[in-house]
Amino acid sequence: MPITLAIDCMGGDHGPSVTIPAAFQFLREDAQARAVLVGLPEVFDEAFRKSATEFGERLIVRTASEVVEMDEAPASAMRGKKDSSMRVAIDLVKSGEATAAVSAGNTGALMAISRFVLKTLPGIDRPAIATIIPSMKGQTYMLDLGANVDCTAEHLLQFAIMGAMLLEAVEHSESPTVGLLNIGEEDIKGNEVVKRAAQLLRQSDLNFYGNVEGNDIFKGTTDIVVCDGFVGNVALKSAEGLAHMITSLLSQEFKRNLLTKLIALIAMPVLRRFKRVFDPSRYNGATLLGLRGVVVKSHGSADQVAYVWALRRAAEAARHNLIERIATRMQAVAIKAENAAGEGAAA
Amino acid sequence: MPITLAIDCMGGDHGPSVTIPAAFQFLREDAQARAVLVGLPEVFDEAFRKSATEFGERLIVRTASEVVEMDEAPASAMRGKKDSSMRVAIDLVKSGEATAAVSAGNTGALMAISRFVLKTLPGIDRPAIATIIPSMKGQTYMLDLGANVDCTAEHLLQFAIMGAMLLEAVEHSESPTVGLLNIGEEDIKGNEVVKRAAQLLRQSDLNFYGNVEGNDIFKGTTDIVVCDGFVGNVALKSAEGLAHMITSLLSQEFKRNLLTKLIALIAMPVLRRFKRVFDPSRYNGATLLGLRGVVVKSHGSADQVAYVWALRRAAEAARHNLIERIATRMQAVAIKAENAAGEGAAA
Repeated sequence: MPITLAIDCMGGDHGPSVTIPAAFQFLREDAQARAVLVGLPEVFDEAFRKSATEFGERLIVRTASEVVEMDEAPASAMRGKKDSSMRVAIDLVKSGEATAAVSAGNTGALMAISRFVLKTLPGIDRPAIATIIPSMKGQTYMLDLGANVDCTAEHLLQFAIMGAMLLEAVEHSESPTVGLLNIGEEDIKGNEVVKRAAQLLRQSDLNFYGNVEGNDIFKGTTDIVVCDGFVGNVALKSAEGLAHMITSLLSQEFKRNLLTKLIALIAMPVLRRFKRVFDPSRYNGATLLGLRGVVVKSHGSADQVAYVWALRRAAEAARHNLIERIATRMQAVAIKAENAAGEGAAA
Repeated sequence: MPITLAIDCMGGDHGPSVTIPAAFQFLREDAQARAVLVGLPEVFDEAFRKSATEFGERLIVRTASEVVEMDEAPASAMRGKKDSSMRVAIDLVKSGEATAAVSAGNTGALMAISRFVLKTLPGIDRPAIATIIPSMKGQTYMLDLGANVDCTAEHLLQFAIMGAMLLEAVEHSESPTVGLLNIGEEDIKGNEVVKRAAQLLRQSDLNFYGNVEGNDIFKGTTDIVVCDGFVGNVALKSAEGLAHMITSLLSQEFKRNLLTKLIALIAMPVLRRFKRVFDPSRYNGATLLGLRGVVVKSHGSADQVAYVWALRRAAEAARHNLIERIATRMQAVAIKAENAAGEGAAA
């Protein structure tokens, strides 16, 4: 069955000027894929219609009358804007007209609307957001980055399962390694929730590596790093803060005087290669996990190259049955827990 | 009254080869200070005695028969080695022969021994460790980095008070700003503990800025960043991990071929200046807070320059009455709480 992406053309800092060319590029790349572009009527003008003919039936347009603002409160977006481009895109996944939705809009609103419309999978208490982080070995998937605070050990186990299934679907890795973010490698380290989560993970059939520390995210010690949304947010923002400090101090030093500017010019090819490794566009496309449908969040500031990456990830997740994988695995966990409870009662 | 530092000469990766020259440098710099050097007898040999004459009565030697290993379990160091150089240094603070202790030894053992020997100040449930982080504005003090996990809102308030008193004593800042590490600036963000801690901090007489995020540590938004020891550890290790990745990738790029190596040579002066800003030695000297005595932990890998910074910080904290400042402020908090309780009962 061909996959169909519902694309919220209005979301993100650049809106249709990025999302539409990205959608075209994606459809050219992926001849098996279809797309439904959702946006305000004026977006689909004469020029658009002319270029869109290239894709024939693979490209469908759906108009919406409203747009969720980037700084709008999730509750207001959810209740007040039932015909927003974001909402219509998610509705298309719900109705089965699309197999995945992609938006660069307001994260809080996207999560609230997705959860409300699609609902969570059986056994999943809280949907999570998995993000891709560059690492010394390529990339690390990290979750939760969706602001799930006060998580229990069971939540962390669910995050681990969802993350592992995401890697199976999108990266085609068999039995990806899972690390639990902690403050030491030893079992006795950490807070009560993390200690219990380690027990649950050890009992699970996931490929559990054990505890990892903050630096392991960038070392690439494991394929997946699992943590509470509070800790995940702080870890990532701290690293971003340091990266910003390093680059701005480095550029200050190179701009100091004529000589250093000349040196910068000479060093440019090397610095540019170096920058490419960190190119955030390659890592664009965070996946909302635990819902009854594939939803991918692009960074708001994404350019065309970055947005295409988010579309590719959504297509891959949908094509390789992300939702079914999570549902099946969660069912196995539930049966195991039931059996354990039964044995406990019999003993 | 002159201050006296008790220096654990055996601690750290380099032991006496760093700690003794550093002690000498410190005593030369600070003509008002005294030091008690604690180490195995063989450390204080003929050569040592000759050089030590320079300082006359300002330098005293105290021998110890044991050394706490860098990877020794804190409990074993505390119970099994009552005559370790670390223990003797702390005992000197307890007896009043020294006004502060400095060690580059095993952090866990130093905390356990300090807590056992010196005890905590009234009102302090858990001692904390405050570390200095380089920031765009100079430096940020962050605590807890002493592995206090599962902290309550009251613990975070205590950390904030201790951090503020440390800055008053060591940096001579009046009313330093305190930020509470969270996942957003808005009051509604964060987990339950952080939300309640924000309330307590708002009611306190500290200069509470409000919530800060991970990137604010390096931006230098506030003088002090307060967090749970779990979150603090993850934030710092993540940032360290990224820094390591950036520097190793950059050096890889510069080593790629003859041309890039030549470029590296040309860019060296700029890169070296840049590196100096991040020079970790300037930030050496983490303070153990909440004890009835000043204890400063140097990084284990500290060289002489870095170790002197730890000694300076210990001297400054002792000279400017860190312990009395914390004790007085905690008393004020206790009285305020009592009055509030009394009013509550009267109402």
